Amino acid sequence: MKSYRKELWFQTGSRRELINITGEIDKCLKESGIKEGLVLCNAMHITASVFINDDESGLHKDFEKWLEGIAPEKPYGQYMHNGFEDNADAHLKRTIMGRETVIAVTGGSLDMGPWEQVFYGEFDGKRRKRVLVKIIGE
Amino acid sequence: MKSYRKELWFQTGSRRELINITGEIDKCLKESGIKEGLVLCNAMHITASVFINDDESGLHKDFEKWLEGIAPEKPYGQYMHNGFEDNADAHLKRTIMGRETVIAVTGGSLDMGPWEQVFYGEFDGKRRKRVLVKIIGE
Amino acid sequence: MKSYRKELWFQTGSRRELINITGEIDKCLKESGIKEGLVLCNAMHITASVFINDDESGLHKDFEKWLEGIAPEKPYGQYMHNGFEDNADAHLKRTIMGRETVIAVTGGSLDMGPWEQVFYGEFDGKRRKRVLVKIIGE
Repeated sequence: MKSYRKELWFQTGSRRELINITGEIDKCLKESGIKEGLVLCNAMHITASVFINDDESGLHKDFEKWLEGIAPEKPYGQYMHNGFEDNADAHLKRTIMGRETVIAVTGGSLDMGPWEQVFYGEFDGKRRKRVLVKIIGE
Repeated sequence: MKSYRKELWFQTGSRRELINITGEIDKCLKESGIKEGLVLCNAMHITASVFINDDESGLHKDFEKWLEGIAPEKPYGQYMHNGFEDNADAHLKRTIMGRETVIAVTGGSLDMGPWEQVFYGEFDGKRRKRVLVKIIGE
Repeated sequence: MKSYRKELWFQTGSRRELINITGEIDKCLKESGIKEGLVLCNAMHITASVFINDDESGLHKDFEKWLEGIAPEKPYGQYMHNGFEDNADAHLKRTIMGRETVIAVTGGSLDMGPWEQVFYGEFDGKRRKRVLVKIIGE
């Protein structure tokens, strides 16, 4: 069994942002030399997400509005967590979007459907944060 | 390390439908000959889900009503994504239900709790769509 | 490839409770002797969750209030599932929080971010229920 590990680092300009990282994960897979196995890709921070969906800007605006409806950023005082912080909403938004995704590796490629794209979902940005890419297989 | 891959195809008669696929995944596992390892089962489409819950028809009606409350199908114009499409709600519903599940393989069997059943969750159906079953182990 | 399996058992005193199980998973990893691989940790019951977030009591109260808003326990009669049971809300809450998490193993340790902690999320407790820890790797 072979294994591979890499951290991807991000610093967004705004509090919330969705970044397509499919190409970076694919590059990791090529570097690993693994042909059959599994990729785990997860946020290493608890106010961010890695998820798979469509790379369509309208849908990304829908996600923003929808998540703000389910777990609004403000007023900050509505959350117990926001005594010393202001990011409780980001913990909840990331819960909806998910911490991680697991992707099959087949014949040396990411084994994904035609519209599947992997995103880093930042919900409390403007600082350096990381994603872990771990690949195991042969 | 051994690996196994299969696509399961579905075409539902209605826009939304939950289909128990536990038996099909179990058949894949037997075909693979793998005794210890992990099964990844994921929707290959971004408006569908693979998830684990109860095979109880009342609960499935509760899911339908609950998801319609959180991410209603209509009016279509409420979503930016629905310029050329009408399925933004399906992207959101699948986000709640999840893209994938990972299941342990122990002694050649799916290592699941007594009530755990795996479902394909279709949220934009009436067309051919796929689920990936990838198994790695020994 | 090596594999390891353990069940963790819980019986909470109240219907809903969040329990930090990071230490127990770490103990499993040490027992397994696996240095590189993946840990799957999942609830074996469909009204419970395993998820990763912050070990902060204010946030845990926010989760309780937020989940009660999205999928209220009462009135029981609002759910079709509650003909013979009263736990439909627990099935929905666990769907939001997720059934499982997959964690990388690197150099014999859980490869997690500084604030990541693993929780058992009980949403229909007061009875014995299980979590599965499955580790594969080398």
